[in-house]
Amino acid sequence: MTQLAKARAGITTPEMEAVAANEQVDVLLLRERIARGSVVIPANINHGGLVPSGIGEGLTMKVNANIGTSSDRADLDEELEKLRVAVEAGADSVMDLSTGGDIDQCRKKILELATVPIGTVPIYQAVVETVNQEGGVVHLSEDKIFEVIEKQSADGVDFITVHCGVTRSALDMLKRQGRVTDIVSRGGAFLTTWMLHHDRENPLYENYDRLLDIVKKYDVTLSLGDGLRPGCLADATDRAQIHELMTLGDLTKRAWEQDVQVMIEGPGHVPLNQIKANVLLQKQLCHNAPFYVLGPLVTDIAAGYDHVACAIGGAVAGEAGADFLCYVTPTEHLCLPGVADVREGVVVSKIAAHAADIARGHEGAIARDRKMAIARKNLDWEAQMELAIDPRKARKLRSENPPEEEDVCTMCGKFCAMKTVKDYFKSP
Amino acid sequence: MTQLAKARAGITTPEMEAVAANEQVDVLLLRERIARGSVVIPANINHGGLVPSGIGEGLTMKVNANIGTSSDRADLDEELEKLRVAVEAGADSVMDLSTGGDIDQCRKKILELATVPIGTVPIYQAVVETVNQEGGVVHLSEDKIFEVIEKQSADGVDFITVHCGVTRSALDMLKRQGRVTDIVSRGGAFLTTWMLHHDRENPLYENYDRLLDIVKKYDVTLSLGDGLRPGCLADATDRAQIHELMTLGDLTKRAWEQDVQVMIEGPGHVPLNQIKANVLLQKQLCHNAPFYVLGPLVTDIAAGYDHVACAIGGAVAGEAGADFLCYVTPTEHLCLPGVADVREGVVVSKIAAHAADIARGHEGAIARDRKMAIARKNLDWEAQMELAIDPRKARKLRSENPPEEEDVCTMCGKFCAMKTVKDYFKSP
Repeated sequence: MTQLAKARAGITTPEMEAVAANEQVDVLLLRERIARGSVVIPANINHGGLVPSGIGEGLTMKVNANIGTSSDRADLDEELEKLRVAVEAGADSVMDLSTGGDIDQCRKKILELATVPIGTVPIYQAVVETVNQEGGVVHLSEDKIFEVIEKQSADGVDFITVHCGVTRSALDMLKRQGRVTDIVSRGGAFLTTWMLHHDRENPLYENYDRLLDIVKKYDVTLSLGDGLRPGCLADATDRAQIHELMTLGDLTKRAWEQDVQVMIEGPGHVPLNQIKANVLLQKQLCHNAPFYVLGPLVTDIAAGYDHVACAIGGAVAGEAGADFLCYVTPTEHLCLPGVADVREGVVVSKIAAHAADIARGHEGAIARDRKMAIARKNLDWEAQMELAIDPRKARKLRSENPPEEEDVCTMCGKFCAMKTVKDYFKSP
Repeated sequence: MTQLAKARAGITTPEMEAVAANEQVDVLLLRERIARGSVVIPANINHGGLVPSGIGEGLTMKVNANIGTSSDRADLDEELEKLRVAVEAGADSVMDLSTGGDIDQCRKKILELATVPIGTVPIYQAVVETVNQEGGVVHLSEDKIFEVIEKQSADGVDFITVHCGVTRSALDMLKRQGRVTDIVSRGGAFLTTWMLHHDRENPLYENYDRLLDIVKKYDVTLSLGDGLRPGCLADATDRAQIHELMTLGDLTKRAWEQDVQVMIEGPGHVPLNQIKANVLLQKQLCHNAPFYVLGPLVTDIAAGYDHVACAIGGAVAGEAGADFLCYVTPTEHLCLPGVADVREGVVVSKIAAHAADIARGHEGAIARDRKMAIARKNLDWEAQMELAIDPRKARKLRSENPPEEEDVCTMCGKFCAMKTVKDYFKSP
């Protein structure tokens, strides 16, 4: 039985207990939300050592870090170091998007070491192996897709991205309306190529029940992918994107009928003024299933700083009700991220998530900032370092620039505002 | 005659022509807005070599970079390098906040080299010299403040921050309501200390006409400072802050009566969900004078990454109508920024400003992103590098991680989504 099935049956699982304790929410309320589908706990029955984490209504916003090899750079040790650093920096989940080297080995090793939920995109492995063996994505077989999904599910993957909403009618809309960047999702691009070449429907859409049968056995959470997400601001919120979203809403209901947990993936590149509407649309069209946003990036020109464009969009999406942020690193649109980029990406996304938690009135998040404010007022530098989102970087910057007087910093030196007025106001 | 006086008299100045051409707006519309006070052109008649820049209604959002020595770190050459790097990275103005070393020399040198408008906070020099000569801020004399304002104005400073709204009644409100971080503005802290010690009113408030007489001669734009801005989320949008803002609204009208240009400075540390209300309040209470926001930082715990917390808040403030962003660097709350921090701070603030311009429907900003999207679709990497907000960093990341196939990047390698589907969709 999946977490959803148990919630519906009125069974409180150890995973629900753990999430409720960690988030300081009532476990029965949490269970009710799981039963309604507005919260998921991605927890494959085969993922040993997993510390369960919840995503959705009433919980803190979560952050995912993508790692994984590519055909151009495949170093298992480096990927394991990215895993370690991502979790250390606060990532709530990690996706292994490997498309290079020994994909099975990389995933198994990550699952063995990871205490956070692990996600994958099975179509990547299916396509990479097909291309390497047969020369092109058009040779992909339906069975190959489902074999990979079964294998990865059996290995213990907690959630998988499946681009089931890339349907022929959505592609027709895309072609009719026209787009600047067409398709920027890798999974979406593979499926589209296959569909257009063979003049066939999306196998993940046509055989959705087969997919549900597999993932249900392991309680793999479906992350219904947005293969038609906009790849630039000009394409945002267009017919193809919204058509796919509506399909994902239908598929959400069908998954719930089979007790399968579901999240919905969302854009992408979206102008700041369209983000709120995008979140509202997802919540309405997908029956309040958790929303997992890939960005949104609020400009197309921030290459080298896309983590910042993502933090702006992610915070605003979170305030509007998004539940789960996929990080973006400084190397987005340029190259595969290295270990330092992964770290930077996670911290910056955690800032966005935290800002959203505060905006949504989360008491724990608000209390954390208040503690920092009190430490600042008291010129208590040790407490300030401890309370910083990344104590290591904060300590480094301060220690490299020691002030003459220990209770201030080199920004204002002895003319510190806090120090200037402290005799006139009582300490908090 | 100031730009405001000339606009009211129906005179179109070379500065207005330059701004209108640069921003591609109608010069008569621009002049009308200057006359109404919703746009300023900070352009001291003594600042030779200035390239005029406009701030306010209908113009792109501008970014200011703070530089300047401190009592702990005073190196003129380093500050001049910060100036160079800030402007190169896109800063629209620079404030010299020096409080260490030879303050006069630093300002004169910056004014000599700067083509962008230069701002200062004269009370800093007045206090530093008083403290160094007489041992404490309480020895500050009113004449000293106005002498420094006169000197800096005569030197060619284009805008000055003056904390005229830190009044006794605002301080009473602050004390009565209570705050966590009391006063975090240096200027606000100096004035408060002086006022509470001497049991006197703020000299910049009491002698506001004297201030107007000086700045009017040189067409120095007043940046009415928020000495009582919240220094943490818990203090945001409180009575002291709003009282000061209302005073600044009164002082705006009085400045306009004397043909003096005015901007209003704003918070500070503000939760994401309060930013829009803060911008609306400023526009209402200050008669649509341009809003210059110092952040807003959407969390208190981002030390080491406060530039990101500022980008989130700045973009949202911009979308809501703020006109001018004061950058924040990664060293905020930790130490004086170095040259690399200044660069990072400017680029990240420019991203926020650009995202806001797009959200406000600015055609030029939207067109720039569209060009980047087309370059991406065409796998035109040279154009992508050119169009990036920071071509140098984008080129560096890409060249350090060369892909095997030249038309992709190492993120997806040969499995690039764009490349996969390009035969199925026409090029844009």
